[in-house]
Amino acid sequence: MTENCLFCGIVAGTIPSQQVASNERAIAFMDINPATRGHLLVVPREHATDLRESAPEDLIAATLLAQSLVGRVIERLDADGANLLSCIGADAWQSVFHTHLHVIPRYKDDPLRLPWHPTSGDADAITATAAELR
Amino acid sequence: MTENCLFCGIVAGTIPSQQVASNERAIAFMDINPATRGHLLVVPREHATDLRESAPEDLIAATLLAQSLVGRVIERLDADGANLLSCIGADAWQSVFHTHLHVIPRYKDDPLRLPWHPTSGDADAITATAAELR
Ligand SMILES: [Zn+2]
Ligand SMILES: [Zn+2]
Ligand SMILES: [Zn+2]
Ligand SMILES: [Zn+2]
Repeated sequence: MTENCLFCGIVAGTIPSQQVASNERAIAFMDINPATRGHLLVVPREHATDLRESAPEDLIAATLLAQSLVGRVIERLDADGANLLSCIGADAWQSVFHTHLHVIPRYKDDPLRLPWHPTSGDADAITATAAELR
Repeated sequence: MTENCLFCGIVAGTIPSQQVASNERAIAFMDINPATRGHLLVVPREHATDLRESAPEDLIAATLLAQSLVGRVIERLDADGANLLSCIGADAWQSVFHTHLHVIPRYKDDPLRLPWHPTSGDADAITATAAELR
């Protein structure tokens, strides 16, 4: 655990999050600035600055958790597809420097363009969506 | 191998590509419509429509190959970062229906926005970049 890392705090439980799934080496929780309904973040429990620095077993665990969540958002949220995205470096839109994979549900004709400009989502709506995904 | 699949043809070698790296279950080659200089595609050798359908071992092999290439583009092309992107479904910008991961080198102040509108890159420039990456 690295001090002052938001995602290490979420993994440790000292910072609240809406967790929806986990495995031994990774957890998935709702992005509070969702690009679309059901936007999730998948993070290895072990701190690393970005995907280059993560141990293979941590990256594998996060990837397999993300793979299962791609299926889940499409089934449960009736999404029409999904994107898996990871940003390595500030010039590639990385804003939290702890390895993470975005799982972004996609809906026909949704307005998603990247980079999106994060704005807080409606907290109640996020809570309801988290319940659908657990 | 699935007939009429562009990436199966590339894996089989019946369709030409500029391969830069491979492992037992995945290969990486230059995207001929690069979003930025050094844009690579990483595909499992085994056909699957998208990441949901790939066997874990194929997805793991592609992910670990992509991880090593993220490091390589940053070092060799002097990129400032990179994005890893996978598109699942046409509504999520998928255009070739064989599982693949995009490794997109990023450069300070590059104009990348997603979706990009694929346009053919300069063939000689792509060949030169491939040589830097092998
Ligand atoms: Zn951390
Ligand atoms: Zn992020
Ligand atoms: Zn194929
Ligand atoms: Zn693609």
